[in-house]
Amino acid sequence: MKIWGLRRTFSFVIMDGKSISAKILNDLKDEISSLKMKNYTSSVPTLGYLVNSSNAGSFIYYKKKEKTCHSIGIDTIGYDVIGKNDISELYGHINYLNANTAVNGILVQLPIFPGANEAEILDKVSLEKDIDGLTRKNMGMLFMKNSEPLFYPCTALGVFELIKSYGINPRGLHTVIIGRSNLCGLPLFSMFQKANSTVTMCHTATQNLKQITSQADILVSAAGKANLIREDMVKDGSIVIDIGINKINTGEKSLIVGDVDYERVREKTKFITPVPGGVGPMTIAMLLKNLVKAWKRAQNF
Amino acid sequence: MKIWGLRRTFSFVIMDGKSISAKILNDLKDEISSLKMKNYTSSVPTLGYLVNSSNAGSFIYYKKKEKTCHSIGIDTIGYDVIGKNDISELYGHINYLNANTAVNGILVQLPIFPGANEAEILDKVSLEKDIDGLTRKNMGMLFMKNSEPLFYPCTALGVFELIKSYGINPRGLHTVIIGRSNLCGLPLFSMFQKANSTVTMCHTATQNLKQITSQADILVSAAGKANLIREDMVKDGSIVIDIGINKINTGEKSLIVGDVDYERVREKTKFITPVPGGVGPMTIAMLLKNLVKAWKRAQNF
Repeated sequence: MKIWGLRRTFSFVIMDGKSISAKILNDLKDEISSLKMKNYTSSVPTLGYLVNSSNAGSFIYYKKKEKTCHSIGIDTIGYDVIGKNDISELYGHINYLNANTAVNGILVQLPIFPGANEAEILDKVSLEKDIDGLTRKNMGMLFMKNSEPLFYPCTALGVFELIKSYGINPRGLHTVIIGRSNLCGLPLFSMFQKANSTVTMCHTATQNLKQITSQADILVSAAGKANLIREDMVKDGSIVIDIGINKINTGEKSLIVGDVDYERVREKTKFITPVPGGVGPMTIAMLLKNLVKAWKRAQNF
Repeated sequence: MKIWGLRRTFSFVIMDGKSISAKILNDLKDEISSLKMKNYTSSVPTLGYLVNSSNAGSFIYYKKKEKTCHSIGIDTIGYDVIGKNDISELYGHINYLNANTAVNGILVQLPIFPGANEAEILDKVSLEKDIDGLTRKNMGMLFMKNSEPLFYPCTALGVFELIKSYGINPRGLHTVIIGRSNLCGLPLFSMFQKANSTVTMCHTATQNLKQITSQADILVSAAGKANLIREDMVKDGSIVIDIGINKINTGEKSLIVGDVDYERVREKTKFITPVPGGVGPMTIAMLLKNLVKAWKRAQNF
């Protein structure tokens, strides 16, 4: 029954990526120290990195990852390529990190080299150290049937850890994904499809977006557009995952918001991720989880 | 207006894969002979193959490909691995074909080796000779944004050649794909999505299949299930692509049919592919098109 002005609100659950990622990082810290003790190993899990500090935003983000590494017992070693304009030097650095057995995983913090083909650069990382999961072969293994990648791309993996934490099984549900990036949308397509969800991929050329999102049991927005998802586009009792990170100015101050009109949409949902504090914090935790996985494999743990 | 018993029928177009593929093969034949004359080359485009003749169906299918090769000026060279049970010998054959500069493309006719991991075997083919498009790296390049594979998997490419022949542009249309195989469903997901279609991937775990297929502007069925798609599951004026190949017994004789209840469904469509004579004949033509592409690249034509 629908009565004008009457509105059904659910008791929604806010998916708390901040505290879940903190717990994951704490577990990783314990795992690293206990493995080192049990196995009398002198090996320390080590992240190899390439960063270009001329991009302030990218450098701050790298520094956050570095700090998190150090806080749980992971070493870092790498290069700042600021001021270099020789791509073959960059490839030389990647080759050095590939060959160095003390390095367990390699992070190429994008943007790394102005005007370069990023997929080409990322593809130089060896498969076994590709903790971002973005080499072509790893992506093929993610995409293909009866096949698993060595590493799942971090943001997509973070979404899956998050829904798992809340006991959500996507099997048989209709998942609608907005945005088709290599980092988020495409890996999520593969992961939800392999988890037996029916998956619809929407993007900038999609007609009647509202008609499609209204059917979603799970709606994932990775469009990077504030207020894209309004109340009337969301199904009652659905699960909404917001991967957008958008800077908006409200008078004097600037705010970080997602793609979802959170205040209004949340009352229609069963589960929703906030921005910030939802998927965002999960991403770094998953990078370090992948690194520890690579370290354990290299150590035969 | 809907009147009981009144039924709207469209003047539908049958997409004639048989004659379109015959034309493509003829064009390839002309291209091969004119390139050979123009460039005074002694090189003949050559297919390297691996087949296991203990599987009768697979061997007949290979023989059909071989005959088509010969009819347009393509040589074949390869191995029948019947009775061999040494996987390293199989890998040795693939390595020989990879290294042989006279071989332009390699076909591994599946099933090739009982109980083997087929993705693992296919992945041994070198990227430049992977005319079936099924190596992991090629699949990653197909899947990823801002990226193209060296070769599109043949059946999926055949579907695209077919719709192109009839002037169909999938941009902005809603495409629903049923079936998620490496050969058909998954490559079609990537190709339709990159052609700016909104794409929904359905499969055996999909709930309310009818509700989803009824919204499809383009419906692609690659489920391998006779009569899966009935009249009431199809939108008026839609485009229906049937990739199913199913053997059914009707009294005395056995028939090949697709996934679609063709006789009834076709009257609701604008375009439809028959089975046989639709997508099927396109697949071999696309394999040879990929081979000629590989030959031209190797010859720097």
